[in-house]
Order: sequence, then structure tokens, then C-alpha cells
Amino acid sequence: MAGRIEGRVALVMEYDGANYAGWQLQHNADTVQARVEKALGHLFGCPVSVRAASRTDSGVHARGQVVALDLPRPFPPEKLAPALNWHLPADIRVVRACTVPRDFDPRTWAVGKIYRYCLFTRRASSAFVSRYCWHLPGELDVAAMNSGARYLIGSHDFASFQAAGSSVRDTRRTVRHLFCRRQGPLVTITCVGDGFLYKMVRIIVGSLVEIGLGRHSPDWLGQVLAGRDRQLAGPTAPAHGLVLERVLYRPSLSNCRRPW
Amino acid sequence: MAGRIEGRVALVMEYDGANYAGWQLQHNADTVQARVEKALGHLFGCPVSVRAASRTDSGVHARGQVVALDLPRPFPPEKLAPALNWHLPADIRVVRACTVPRDFDPRTWAVGKIYRYCLFTRRASSAFVSRYCWHLPGELDVAAMNSGARYLIGSHDFASFQAAGSSVRDTRRTVRHLFCRRQGPLVTITCVGDGFLYKMVRIIVGSLVEIGLGRHSPDWLGQVLAGRDRQLAGPTAPAHGLVLERVLYRPSLSNCRRPW
Repeated sequence: MAGRIEGRVALVMEYDGANYAGWQLQHNADTVQARVEKALGHLFGCPVSVRAASRTDSGVHARGQVVALDLPRPFPPEKLAPALNWHLPADIRVVRACTVPRDFDPRTWAVGKIYRYCLFTRRASSAFVSRYCWHLPGELDVAAMNSGARYLIGSHDFASFQAAGSSVRDTRRTVRHLFCRRQGPLVTITCVGDGFLYKMVRIIVGSLVEIGLGRHSPDWLGQVLAGRDRQLAGPTAPAHGLVLERVLYRPSLSNCRRPW
Repeated sequence: MAGRIEGRVALVMEYDGANYAGWQLQHNADTVQARVEKALGHLFGCPVSVRAASRTDSGVHARGQVVALDLPRPFPPEKLAPALNWHLPADIRVVRACTVPRDFDPRTWAVGKIYRYCLFTRRASSAFVSRYCWHLPGELDVAAMNSGARYLIGSHDFASFQAAGSSVRDTRRTVRHLFCRRQGPLVTITCVGDGFLYKMVRIIVGSLVEIGLGRHSPDWLGQVLAGRDRQLAGPTAPAHGLVLERVLYRPSLSNCRRPW
């Protein structure tokens, strides 16, 4: 059976979230998971269910979502990505596929995630990037945003940055990296952490923007964090500016040609 | 009349060419020029005709098209771009507007143009950039492409790189810069010249790709140039990978806040 994948495999996937009601299966809504399971069903002729590292929200994009599944029969590894892409819409792509241990769980095995948020600050919106950026015409004080971001780096109770309606009780998380960078009219915010609460990245971005617009000073974010109250933080930034860039696993798992 | 634009103005425009049959007005086809003139008609309540620096082909994009028009009545300069953008579809944007001399002609006054072509070489196509890149899965020898490109830099008769059906008789042009650059799975080809024949950039790209794929050696491009015959060159690269980046004018014309 050399040269064939058997058992559990992981797919590294990218998708444009604009046309989907998020990752997770839903009744009466088109989701990325539904499209992936449909493509697998076409390919193998039987139902195949999948599990993703992150349940991205409606409209959120992914460049490095990790999706695990058990193959119903052996399949040549080099053909899995192209075969699935043949059955998938053009805005959902399998970038590569690799074998993983039989007990691999993309969600619980993840040791971190990298998200990127994109702001477009030119007065005129863009004919090209408006689909992937929050348009905020005018000046943003990126240095002040980075001063504010420093209050959030580290292990903290992020209860102020969790959207209402979540049932998560332990709201302690670790943000390892949070940095804003200007590149011409684009401002990107990169956030790396061990895990995130519901809409946490978008509430952090909405709060950093409040500072960038001069509505609050950087140290306000320290007070928001200490208050442990969602009402204190800024608004939730729109979904379409957010991209799940990468899911991080232990190096020992990187048996793909390219590491995650 | 201080603070108001009168007379002739130039618009710097960007557009996603995917949904349009090129720049130029056509019967029974949706073009960028038609959309711009329609927006001006809505804004001013009378017909306004425009003239662009480049008649981009169907599917070709622009990030720095320059469009001239005569205002039918004075209009506050800072409001011209937002007012037009309000009437334009989201994939056509006026980036800025500025006053120009009464005899300014965006086509004949241009001293050069910068085009960029984008190739995407990853095996799986992209959920994000497929709209703007020619997907060529596999390895491209970028160093060989640059060796070939050097044969075209300078003033030459580019008859081999002009599409059939053009009535242009003087096929001598000057290519000032032609360079291929790899950035991960993307290969960009930047071409700067004083002017271009019909589909010249796309035929140059199609020929460079022949070299990149190993179908021809770099010196083949010198023979193609010397032969002055369209049959000798490579195929015309697809329109959707091409962007008109910028139109160049003499520095004295740069009375915009930002130069062209």
C-alpha cells in the first residue's frame, strides 16, 4: 500500500468566506464545511465527515485552516488535493494534504493560531481589496494602537473581549503577539495566541481602532482588560477583514512536505 | 472661485476589469468608460465625455489609469472623487482628482506606462488571487526569464509582439525596464515603456513564460525580436493577470497632492 494515504489525513485549506455562513454545518445555510463534505462525498461515493481546527464565523476568511478526516478507502496522497479541488468551488481550495496520527484532533492538538486583520485607510475605497479589508478612511495612529496592544500581550482573563452568548466559562487566554503595521494605505493587525474566545480577535481589533482614531488613550485598554466586562471594550470589527492565517502544532506533527 | 476645480481635470482611477469589456465605449457591451461617463452624467445632469491614457483590453485591470474630462460647471475639488465614487460600482474607483492644463491629453502627454503581470505557480489555484493572476502550476525558471527579458530592453522594432488586426505602422517602441520577480508562489513581471503596441505586454509575458517552462532558451527571444513576425513569439497571456499600474507624465504636471 506504499504511496497511498490511509487512515486519518489533515488538509490545509484556504477559503474566501464572503459567500459562506462560516465554517460550521448549519441547517438552511451554505457553509464551508458543507461544501467540503459534499466534495468528499462526490470523490468517495459515501458520506465523509470532517473536523476543523477553527469554527470561523460567517464572512471570515482562511489561508491555513486545518481539517481532519478519515479516508473511507486508500487514495494516492499526491492526488487528494487536486481531486478535492476539482469538486470544490473556486473560492475554497485544498492547499495540501498529509497523513496524521489516528488520534489527531485539529482543534485540541492545536497549540496556537495566527489571525490577521486588514484595515484599508485610503479615503476612496479599493476596487481590489475591499472584500478583505475594513475600510476606515482617514488617519489611524498606529503607534498608539501598538502602545495599547502591549496591555493585552501575555496571559490574562479576556472576559471583556468575549462576545455575548458564549458558554465558555474559563476566559483566561494567552496572547503571544499582537502587532499593528502600516504598509501604505493598509494597516494589518497580527494576533498570535494559544486560543481565542468567541469573536475575541474582532473585539480586540475594534478596540485598537478606537485608540487609533483617538477616541481613547492606549492605557484605556488596560482598564478594559481589568474590568472583565464586554460593555467596556470597543465594537466588534466586521468579519470580512479577518483571516485565519495558520494553525500551529508541535513540530513533531510536521510530516507534510512543508511544515504548517 | 477659490477652492473649486474648473476647466479640465484628471482622475486617477482603479478598476477590476473582470466584469467589463475593457475601457473603451462599445455598442452592446458594458465598459469602464461607459460607467464613468454615466456616473458623471448623474453627478452633473448633462453628458460628459472622458478620455483615458490607455484603452485597456477586456478583463485587464488598472490601479493608475488616468482619465481627463472638462467639468461642465465648477465643483469643489475635494468632493469630486467621493461624489463620483458614490455613483460608480464598487469595482471602479476614483482614487483622486486634480486640475490639469486646458490642453492636457492623457494619451499623447504620457511619457511612459508601468504594467505588472501576475503569475501564480502553486499547484492548487488560489481562493484569493485567481481573479488577478494567471495560474501556471509548477516550476518557472525566473532566472532564465530574466535572461530572455534582457533582449527586449531598449529601443527595438517590436512587430513580433503586436497582435494581428492592429493598424499601427510604426512598430518601434522603447522598453525601459522588464523584470521578473518571485515572491513565494507569485511571479510578477514588471514592464515599463514609453508606449506599447496592441497586446504587446501580454505577448511578451506569454513568450517569457515559454522560456520559464524550458520550452525555449533565453536567446530565442532575441531571434523572435529580430524576425519581426508575430508567428515567432509565444502565445498571448490571459488578460486577467495584467494591471496598468501607473501612467507617467513629466514632473511639471504633478500638481496633485501625491505625484502620479
